Amino acid sequence: MFLKKYFEEFEIGEQRLTIGRTVTETDIVVHAGQSGDFFPHHMDEEWCSTQPFKKRIAHGTLIFTIGIGLTASFINEVSMTYGYERLRFIKPVFIGDTIKVTVSIKDKKDHKKPGFGLVTELVEVFNQNKELVMLCEHLLLVEKKQA
Amino acid sequence: MFLKKYFEEFEIGEQRLTIGRTVTETDIVVHAGQSGDFFPHHMDEEWCSTQPFKKRIAHGTLIFTIGIGLTASFINEVSMTYGYERLRFIKPVFIGDTIKVTVSIKDKKDHKKPGFGLVTELVEVFNQNKELVMLCEHLLLVEKKQA
Amino acid sequence: MFLKKYFEEFEIGEQRLTIGRTVTETDIVVHAGQSGDFFPHHMDEEWCSTQPFKKRIAHGTLIFTIGIGLTASFINEVSMTYGYERLRFIKPVFIGDTIKVTVSIKDKKDHKKPGFGLVTELVEVFNQNKELVMLCEHLLLVEKKQA
Amino acid sequence: MFLKKYFEEFEIGEQRLTIGRTVTETDIVVHAGQSGDFFPHHMDEEWCSTQPFKKRIAHGTLIFTIGIGLTASFINEVSMTYGYERLRFIKPVFIGDTIKVTVSIKDKKDHKKPGFGLVTELVEVFNQNKELVMLCEHLLLVEKKQA
Amino acid sequence: MFLKKYFEEFEIGEQRLTIGRTVTETDIVVHAGQSGDFFPHHMDEEWCSTQPFKKRIAHGTLIFTIGIGLTASFINEVSMTYGYERLRFIKPVFIGDTIKVTVSIKDKKDHKKPGFGLVTELVEVFNQNKELVMLCEHLLLVEKKQA
Amino acid sequence: MFLKKYFEEFEIGEQRLTIGRTVTETDIVVHAGQSGDFFPHHMDEEWCSTQPFKKRIAHGTLIFTIGIGLTASFINEVSMTYGYERLRFIKPVFIGDTIKVTVSIKDKKDHKKPGFGLVTELVEVFNQNKELVMLCEHLLLVEKKQA
Repeated sequence: MFLKKYFEEFEIGEQRLTIGRTVTETDIVVHAGQSGDFFPHHMDEEWCSTQPFKKRIAHGTLIFTIGIGLTASFINEVSMTYGYERLRFIKPVFIGDTIKVTVSIKDKKDHKKPGFGLVTELVEVFNQNKELVMLCEHLLLVEKKQA
Repeated sequence: MFLKKYFEEFEIGEQRLTIGRTVTETDIVVHAGQSGDFFPHHMDEEWCSTQPFKKRIAHGTLIFTIGIGLTASFINEVSMTYGYERLRFIKPVFIGDTIKVTVSIKDKKDHKKPGFGLVTELVEVFNQNKELVMLCEHLLLVEKKQA
Repeated sequence: MFLKKYFEEFEIGEQRLTIGRTVTETDIVVHAGQSGDFFPHHMDEEWCSTQPFKKRIAHGTLIFTIGIGLTASFINEVSMTYGYERLRFIKPVFIGDTIKVTVSIKDKKDHKKPGFGLVTELVEVFNQNKELVMLCEHLLLVEKKQA
Repeated sequence: MFLKKYFEEFEIGEQRLTIGRTVTETDIVVHAGQSGDFFPHHMDEEWCSTQPFKKRIAHGTLIFTIGIGLTASFINEVSMTYGYERLRFIKPVFIGDTIKVTVSIKDKKDHKKPGFGLVTELVEVFNQNKELVMLCEHLLLVEKKQA
Repeated sequence: MFLKKYFEEFEIGEQRLTIGRTVTETDIVVHAGQSGDFFPHHMDEEWCSTQPFKKRIAHGTLIFTIGIGLTASFINEVSMTYGYERLRFIKPVFIGDTIKVTVSIKDKKDHKKPGFGLVTELVEVFNQNKELVMLCEHLLLVEKKQA
Repeated sequence: MFLKKYFEEFEIGEQRLTIGRTVTETDIVVHAGQSGDFFPHHMDEEWCSTQPFKKRIAHGTLIFTIGIGLTASFINEVSMTYGYERLRFIKPVFIGDTIKVTVSIKDKKDHKKPGFGLVTELVEVFNQNKELVMLCEHLLLVEKKQA
């Protein structure tokens, strides 16, 4: 589970695909309870039925949480999260949708911290119909092998 | 809880402060269970004691979830989340830390969607020592009163 | 979220309505896990199908918890809960029902504690068919402005 | 676990004592998540340290939920909850307190529903110092053997 | 809830039946979160629909947890778990299945620990169609009355 | 995450070690809520302080759940669980203990199902002091490459 993948070893265009996960009513209720966000968009089926999207939708922070969680399948000991850019919720995710994540190396460049570079992963979350529902750029600060 | 605050009514520099919330071991364990991220940084006290930060730290997605959740105290019916920019985790959050959020209107500008403008909220999460632990920019697509 | 509403400022007949919330299977399972009450009325779909009410029903303590929780949208710094009277479960709540709460000021009177009065809120929980499912009287000990 | 105890078989003065349960931080965090009540009294250790009670306190609805749950150790097939009276929260319950419940038959009387009587149980919740922290009267509608 | 049942008081062939419990989607999601096992067999409805069993199935450890939990209705103060043998998952348990457990005393024999004997309980978990879904042998180390 | 490891590829003596995980109060409270087992051994700090082990201990089914969960880091598409043998709880696990699991291939032999063999994994759970707290044998039914 632990590995070392250095800055030099990331290749632009490289891609990996995660396993899938069905977003359940339980996930939404637990997420309301964790975030404290009980907005009717997520929690009130009656109210939702009067809205354009008709059904309860998952919180954006839930899709971000599950999406990033799906990508966490190994620990790169020489990398750390620097931040995220351009987080967008493209389409609503409903109870029963199954999501899956693609991670693509989009960019890499030097960083002012000596011995480190910045890698940009494009994180794309798709539903069971292959529709893009969320995307973001994950910035990683990665150690260089030859510092 | 429902209100209407139009694009014209946002003022740059406006600020609000949320109530606080203590980040607990329970939050971390529940978040691991929701995200599927059981990395030792969050879940293995023994391993953490051998690392520079010494103690288990909250997941970034947890601080984002609670931070954004704390800001969700009213529903603006004429606004929707467009996305987030520049999400940064500045300092680790440990079990027992208490966080609080400042939301400041940082920018507003027209948007290509007719009748809407884009408002940028700067979201800053502070711990009990008034140290900034997380920040991001929340982009809101807000209806104009005079469309 | 914090405000001060003194005894003198409560008016008999005043009423507020909360947002709604759908009671989910998750809520019931989590509540069984919190209360330790795994009675078949709540947890055994097969057994319930042989009973007059046919389907699993929410715990009374769950409806009380969610109902009172829905009313907790602001913090009155000069008021505290004294207790509850006449808690009644009028109709069963099933998985998928959506509940909403009305709070009406029913009574106010002096109290032996100097500088305080007792306010009685009538709390009524309705389902999506506008049927009353639970009611109780919430007694508040409220500071007087002119003590 | 199922038994039949008829109206005639309840004796005024009869008493039973439940097993104990320690109220944990987890219970409070889960209860906030279930009720939607994230008031700082329960969730903000920093704010609580500035208040008279100094520490986070359990929600009233949590103590009611656990207290009633502790009493739910058998199913009386000829009895149903009619309601609760005089629910009072006498002392705060803190994280780490251990509670235990005494149930005493306080009253029994006829009821207008033919073949049923009303039994009043006094439910008293004590902490590890034998201090009464909560009480209520539980009204049971119980079938008569000789209807 | 506490009782004493000594080695001599167990009779081979004795049997008890627990109450039932419906296995819910919530149970599976919570169990994934507790175990850290997010395999698609339990969590990915899309992938499962391509497999022979067609639907998400409960984790083996979940059925073991609920099955053993259902048997825990009283505390025998003179008995402790020695271990389990021959744990088998005979048929998959799906969301919505209702399980019930039979415990039969299968064997009893002396044990090297003076004053104790070993009792073997056969634990059988059945679904709503009376199909055996899980079994195991629960070994109990039980005090002898006449040590 | 998906791989194929055939019967022929298992070598007796092969061993792998999982990452660690701290067993928290939250895990115990959540497990009580999932299993329905609220015995004072796990839930009543006061009562435990009068017992030989002095502190609340984790449920056996919890240690089994977390232990097996820690081993679930990849999906072998040509293997399925046949069952478990000789599950033993050697030492109590307390809140705050950190556990880690060793999986060793102990035995492999033919099986009556044509084209399959039976692999026995010895699963050993250790605490932070390298004390064995649980063990079991996990039986796997594994496809042969050359059926």
